Amino acid sequence: MTDTALASHLFDAAIALTPAGNAAPNDFHGATHPAWQNMVGPFGGITAATALNAVLQHPRLLGEPVSLTVNYAAATADGPFTATARPVRTNRSTQHWIVEITQPDAEGQPQVCTTATVFTALRRETFSATDMPMPAVPAPTDVARQPLPPGVAEWLHRYELRPVSGGIPMRWEGQASAHSQTRLWLRDDPPRALDFASLAAMSDIFFPRIWLRRARRVPVGTVSMTVYFHADGAMLAATGRGHLLGQAQAQAFHHGYFDQTGQLWNEAGQLLATTHQVVYFKE
Amino acid sequence: MTDTALASHLFDAAIALTPAGNAAPNDFHGATHPAWQNMVGPFGGITAATALNAVLQHPRLLGEPVSLTVNYAAATADGPFTATARPVRTNRSTQHWIVEITQPDAEGQPQVCTTATVFTALRRETFSATDMPMPAVPAPTDVARQPLPPGVAEWLHRYELRPVSGGIPMRWEGQASAHSQTRLWLRDDPPRALDFASLAAMSDIFFPRIWLRRARRVPVGTVSMTVYFHADGAMLAATGRGHLLGQAQAQAFHHGYFDQTGQLWNEAGQLLATTHQVVYFKE
Repeated sequence: MTDTALASHLFDAAIALTPAGNAAPNDFHGATHPAWQNMVGPFGGITAATALNAVLQHPRLLGEPVSLTVNYAAATADGPFTATARPVRTNRSTQHWIVEITQPDAEGQPQVCTTATVFTALRRETFSATDMPMPAVPAPTDVARQPLPPGVAEWLHRYELRPVSGGIPMRWEGQASAHSQTRLWLRDDPPRALDFASLAAMSDIFFPRIWLRRARRVPVGTVSMTVYFHADGAMLAATGRGHLLGQAQAQAFHHGYFDQTGQLWNEAGQLLATTHQVVYFKE
Repeated sequence: MTDTALASHLFDAAIALTPAGNAAPNDFHGATHPAWQNMVGPFGGITAATALNAVLQHPRLLGEPVSLTVNYAAATADGPFTATARPVRTNRSTQHWIVEITQPDAEGQPQVCTTATVFTALRRETFSATDMPMPAVPAPTDVARQPLPPGVAEWLHRYELRPVSGGIPMRWEGQASAHSQTRLWLRDDPPRALDFASLAAMSDIFFPRIWLRRARRVPVGTVSMTVYFHADGAMLAATGRGHLLGQAQAQAFHHGYFDQTGQLWNEAGQLLATTHQVVYFKE
């Protein structure tokens, strides 16, 4: 793949931000992209990647992302938005950020649709260990790619998904699952070298745990997602365009909300990120 | 216990906030409390509870907390602080908040020491399930209370801790653990009826996973903690002053940071909260 082709990857197009200029040094302009459309608004993963990208593009950035929390306050409408990334505290080797993504309302007043907090740091070598080893699963080439039926959300076409276990129910209103765990191989389609923004997006790749647990396709919406980046830039570069193994499961469903806890390993078995989210459901 | 005694509980004293008045309706004044001192600054759990309390005290609050993320940007100095809780988006039955806790610097300018995001919602009955059942452990009355050696951080005296497994190493520089999992029974000392603020504080009760894994008491500091409240107010009220079972384990240690994933159940086995944090360590 040529550099030109890389530059035109739909992921990069979707998270692209333009600095608003010297008068508003924390503001960046972007726009939703039709290739990443979900049922209502964009895929939550692309919104997370965009919020993170505002920090990554900021001239005052110190270090690399360690932690990202994204709060989905309202559906993003199709069209332009402004991402405001504010470095609220800069220490010697760490930095804390607050991000707000806004869109104008009918009167032109900015309305918050997404908030995020990001923690970045200069990292250095220490003791390393994984206490959550990658489960034994077949290699990605030995697992069939999931076919996408007509009418699925557009963003699903942006990924190569190879479900290992706990796949999306084949019959709705069918037999509910006794568990809520899914394992799958995944990567961008077309492949793209992994970076912090794409790893953030992939953290939101799992279909809603309630759909698996109940075999009912009830309305859902993530309200908050957190990603801890265990990988540094060098580990992401070494992962490149390889597949990631994703694993996710719910811990509790109660009064309209469930949680999800997840892990993403590279093919070498390195735990690149752990992720959590809490999701609204209606039934 | 009389109402007077309840009102004077050290937990309530520590998280108490006074509205700044009509000119700054989002601002609340508080102060650090010596009973909750950690090695440097206050116990992170009490800071989390204070940030949440600013939302709980706010006249515009809608519903109950579902999600809380606290970012520890700098150590809180002994003395007064201002908690600013801003409702950035209010929907029909949900609300998103950004909280900033500041202290004045030498020139009197506010400096951010803590940020938080909170998601609150009006909840209603739905399908409920726990996919992370409480492990089989002895009852709290059958587990010895952990003695506190002289010189431990003051806040530890505010809790009754009964370690079931994965207790703090008895010999530093001794044998490292093959795992990083801890289980313990806990409650406030003196007992206090559980509420959202105290559950948030208890989410930060676990000693650092790196200490267990390495049997080395290296410097550490939580940089971000998230709590998902599966319990609603009625479930917390039913839990009352009973013990909670806490479980925590790390998933990865890499380049100066490790994560922790945890659960808190009541004695009836209801999963009240799941919690995650990422922690700096030096070695």
